[in-house]
Amino acid sequence: MSKRTYSEAGVDVAKADSFVDRLKHLSLRNGHKKLWPGAGGYASVVPVSEELAVALTTDGVGTKLLLACEQNNLATIGIDLVAMCANDLLCVGAIPHSFLDYYATGKLIEADANALIAGIIEGCDQADMLLIGGETAEMPDLYQRGHFDVAGFAMGMVAKNQLLSGSEISVGDIVIGVASSGIHSNGLSLARKVIDENHPLRKELLTPTVIYVKPMVELLKMRQSNPQLIKGIAHITGGGWRNVLRLNKNVGFAFDTPLPIPSIFDAIREQVELDEMYRTFNMGMGLVIISGEKPDLIIKTLEKAGMHSQVVGRVSEKSDTVSISTGLSGALATISLTA
Amino acid sequence: MSKRTYSEAGVDVAKADSFVDRLKHLSLRNGHKKLWPGAGGYASVVPVSEELAVALTTDGVGTKLLLACEQNNLATIGIDLVAMCANDLLCVGAIPHSFLDYYATGKLIEADANALIAGIIEGCDQADMLLIGGETAEMPDLYQRGHFDVAGFAMGMVAKNQLLSGSEISVGDIVIGVASSGIHSNGLSLARKVIDENHPLRKELLTPTVIYVKPMVELLKMRQSNPQLIKGIAHITGGGWRNVLRLNKNVGFAFDTPLPIPSIFDAIREQVELDEMYRTFNMGMGLVIISGEKPDLIIKTLEKAGMHSQVVGRVSEKSDTVSISTGLSGALATISLTA
Repeated sequence: MSKRTYSEAGVDVAKADSFVDRLKHLSLRNGHKKLWPGAGGYASVVPVSEELAVALTTDGVGTKLLLACEQNNLATIGIDLVAMCANDLLCVGAIPHSFLDYYATGKLIEADANALIAGIIEGCDQADMLLIGGETAEMPDLYQRGHFDVAGFAMGMVAKNQLLSGSEISVGDIVIGVASSGIHSNGLSLARKVIDENHPLRKELLTPTVIYVKPMVELLKMRQSNPQLIKGIAHITGGGWRNVLRLNKNVGFAFDTPLPIPSIFDAIREQVELDEMYRTFNMGMGLVIISGEKPDLIIKTLEKAGMHSQVVGRVSEKSDTVSISTGLSGALATISLTA
Repeated sequence: MSKRTYSEAGVDVAKADSFVDRLKHLSLRNGHKKLWPGAGGYASVVPVSEELAVALTTDGVGTKLLLACEQNNLATIGIDLVAMCANDLLCVGAIPHSFLDYYATGKLIEADANALIAGIIEGCDQADMLLIGGETAEMPDLYQRGHFDVAGFAMGMVAKNQLLSGSEISVGDIVIGVASSGIHSNGLSLARKVIDENHPLRKELLTPTVIYVKPMVELLKMRQSNPQLIKGIAHITGGGWRNVLRLNKNVGFAFDTPLPIPSIFDAIREQVELDEMYRTFNMGMGLVIISGEKPDLIIKTLEKAGMHSQVVGRVSEKSDTVSISTGLSGALATISLTA
């Protein structure tokens, strides 16, 4: 059986990455010294005083949109949109604060727009954020009938001594994985091809992304008096588990005790190679926390918020390498990913 | 001859407005008390300390995108994108600081992407802003071949005592208009229908939006020691000249000496009623400044930056009403617009 890849599905992550890197180089040519170094580039950290910065990020939900259109269910796509941005803010240590949305459509259909916005508001409630503004654009000739796009823009705040830069991460640190709800909002172009319209799990692809904000903000506050508690946070998005490599270029990550893997990934696995799975999807782990001490406190705090987490591995010496020992689909295998 | 309207062109401004109003009501239900009142809702003003706030806004360039695609010229659409956001920040008195873009396309074509980003960088240079981040999304099944969408997110900073809320505007204040470069980035769905593909002025529709930041920041700084200098700023965008009504609900605006009107509007005027023109387009005036004193200082400062401006009218008693005495197309007429 020939296996599918994300690239075949029409998304060239390598090309997009190289473009984004170049853009970063160009665009920061005058500005990078004015920013504080937030871990992994998850958000840009702009100081507004000697002691305080705002963290800014933007994201969309990719082709999860098309699933929402197809299933005529726009109720939760707004939750995904907030999640993609709010979880990114956590990764630099910022407390999510405000959200704006850009919503573009061919023809403004009020029922659709209301459903979308209700989801954004629900997401903001889950993330303890304020929806403070947005832009609604009607573009008759750009979007096909029933199609639309959304982008989110989020602002958080972080004190200088609370910034997560990733630089404190060291070999031996504990790696905690926090459960995802399923596919979240990445890899959908590939997933939609495998889990096609007749597949019994098709609807599950729409399950909203987990918003990790409330317990994570609690933990970030505990960290103020206990800096070793959290040394890094990685939101597992496009690029799958390679996302952890964004936190610190000098170390690697060894995963030996995976979280339970939602059945949707077993179904996709039937047509996609295992390493491609981990390069593309969250594989049941939506957020990773690097801890220097008291991992139990982290796990307990997440548990109280109804989120399952566990120790899944350790920070290793093999820089720029993610190694995964996995029992997915019955077969025990070790795979390695690099950035 | 039957005249064209913006609504016929597929954009229902009234419906979009009512939707946006309702959204605002919903979304601010818990949050509005935490914001400072920025004039006209041009940007949301989020305090980060007792004395300082960040202003946040998002915008796109509407169907000007489609013109860029059609003419295979993506060099300046990024300038428009920055302009739409940066000029909005000025209206609440904020100094533009940082910019992020969301760029979504069916297939990432590097030459196109590079041209787009070069324009964004040029726009950021013109606006003295840093391009600090962005999201590039490849969505194979959402966008038609060669199509894409962009959204901009901008952050500025404003001290509490520098905030422009519009509340100081009073009857008799001087209204200064600053020249636009042409159609800017609003009303394109209608303009593209009138100035069709065979029209000699078609290319002019792509002229980039003026970024008013540099001289306006200079003026905002002068205002620190001279609060009467500027009492309000309105960016003339979707909704045309009605935008001034956003500044203060208790007054009206009487325009009696229009700026020179770019020829593109004369051409559109052949198929569109005059009041519809002023309701949809900037009609040669991209920015409006309400001044309590020293209008000459404003005009001179803009002049030094190569921007033409002049006194165009006065703040009037007729609340919620824009009255315009105009000699457009040879015919002298007085028209009234309400919000």
